[in-house]
Amino acid sequence: MLIIGELINCTRKKAGEAAQKRQADFFRDLAQKQLHAGAHMLDVNGDLPDQESEILAWLVDLVQEVADVPLCLDSADPRALLKVLPLCKQRPMINSLCDDPTHWAMLPFLKEHRPKVIALCTSESGVPKGVGERVEIASRLIDRLTTEGFELQDIYVDPCVLPVATGPYGKDLLATVGRITSDYPGVHVSAGVSNVSFGLPLRKLLNESFLLLLMARGLDTAIVDPCDQQLMMNIMAAEALLGHDEHCRNYLHAYREGKFVQTA
Amino acid sequence: MLIIGELINCTRKKAGEAAQKRQADFFRDLAQKQLHAGAHMLDVNGDLPDQESEILAWLVDLVQEVADVPLCLDSADPRALLKVLPLCKQRPMINSLCDDPTHWAMLPFLKEHRPKVIALCTSESGVPKGVGERVEIASRLIDRLTTEGFELQDIYVDPCVLPVATGPYGKDLLATVGRITSDYPGVHVSAGVSNVSFGLPLRKLLNESFLLLLMARGLDTAIVDPCDQQLMMNIMAAEALLGHDEHCRNYLHAYREGKFVQTA
Repeated sequence: MLIIGELINCTRKKAGEAAQKRQADFFRDLAQKQLHAGAHMLDVNGDLPDQESEILAWLVDLVQEVADVPLCLDSADPRALLKVLPLCKQRPMINSLCDDPTHWAMLPFLKEHRPKVIALCTSESGVPKGVGERVEIASRLIDRLTTEGFELQDIYVDPCVLPVATGPYGKDLLATVGRITSDYPGVHVSAGVSNVSFGLPLRKLLNESFLLLLMARGLDTAIVDPCDQQLMMNIMAAEALLGHDEHCRNYLHAYREGKFVQTA
Repeated sequence: MLIIGELINCTRKKAGEAAQKRQADFFRDLAQKQLHAGAHMLDVNGDLPDQESEILAWLVDLVQEVADVPLCLDSADPRALLKVLPLCKQRPMINSLCDDPTHWAMLPFLKEHRPKVIALCTSESGVPKGVGERVEIASRLIDRLTTEGFELQDIYVDPCVLPVATGPYGKDLLATVGRITSDYPGVHVSAGVSNVSFGLPLRKLLNESFLLLLMARGLDTAIVDPCDQQLMMNIMAAEALLGHDEHCRNYLHAYREGKFVQTA
């Protein structure tokens, strides 16, 4: 399971304020905390009005001072992505490419820099309805990216997680993940899990539970809060249960190292 | 989700001792605690050497004094099942029927009493290997039971949960649940979840996680410890996420009623 830490995100109130004031230590701390908690990669989102490219570039530089892991460049604005791609010391991931002409226009530049790509199931018509439309968009994204020379193992399909408070999306998302993993063996499936709980109480409980449901359908990458200890414990347990952890070695090792908070 | 409380089980040390001494209050308490925690049905297992039928009958009577829910009669011995079936005040479930001549010999008696049936994926050759064998046994059980007049909705297929400490069974169990729910719409799928964690530390964490993985593949019935609050919270979250809880009403209601322990 590839765990991408989600906390460096300027759409969150505290982080947005810290970015406005250019509080570098706030973000260095966030980076270090997430790595310590077990993140393999860090998402970096600099989405502040009128200054996204600048903030994103600032964040990428300062996070790389303290974090020796690849970054996941999180922006809906292709210009911001293109600006920061060359700043990355390790091969980054972009979050995300959609099935939309503005995004496809990045292709020549992406082919040059060869980042890993989160292929988000949205198109110019917006957010998809149902499983069928999600799978169709995913297919178009995968087909075009592989035709353009991207390897399947560098593509991370994101089914586009929507809040269950606003509709019965959970079932569709799970079915989409199941379809993608069976139709395209070798492709990764990723999700920004926390969106699912927006607008509901006890969001952590919903996020923790949804991640396990998604893992059961084949999700192998997640953008989550790695400082949520229950979530990280659940992941270790699920890896053992799903047969991704031979002889439960990692699970037993983590237990002996005291990485599990006693919950009982 | 149908939740069957697992705690009245004489193969557990404390319960076995209490049964030997005929400590009725011990079991009445266990029954009440599980109902209070949210169990919809109670599993009753009287497996003590040479006195199973007698203990099971004793337990069924005393549990029914305090519990106004159906019982799940848990025995591998058809004679014990046949003895206690007529004692049940509400329509019981038997746990379990296997694909084995000794078990099929119960059929005339079962047809008369019409219990719900847990159809366990084991046969006279023992415990199944892999997904294919599990699905084959499940098919034989379902086909024969429906031919004999049992309704599909009264059959609860159990894929036969084995400890992941002894082999990579988790993945097979999940795939089996997926196959059964897609091949036989309308049939229930149940599991004795706690077996999965036997021999490993932090069993609750593994049980809690495994239940969510199974639910993502279609499990709709579980024999679990309903006094595990994290597990019950996970179930409520999963029901909302899986679209089984319209507009998340039950989730929000449980939250407002203070049924969630704050974990953060």
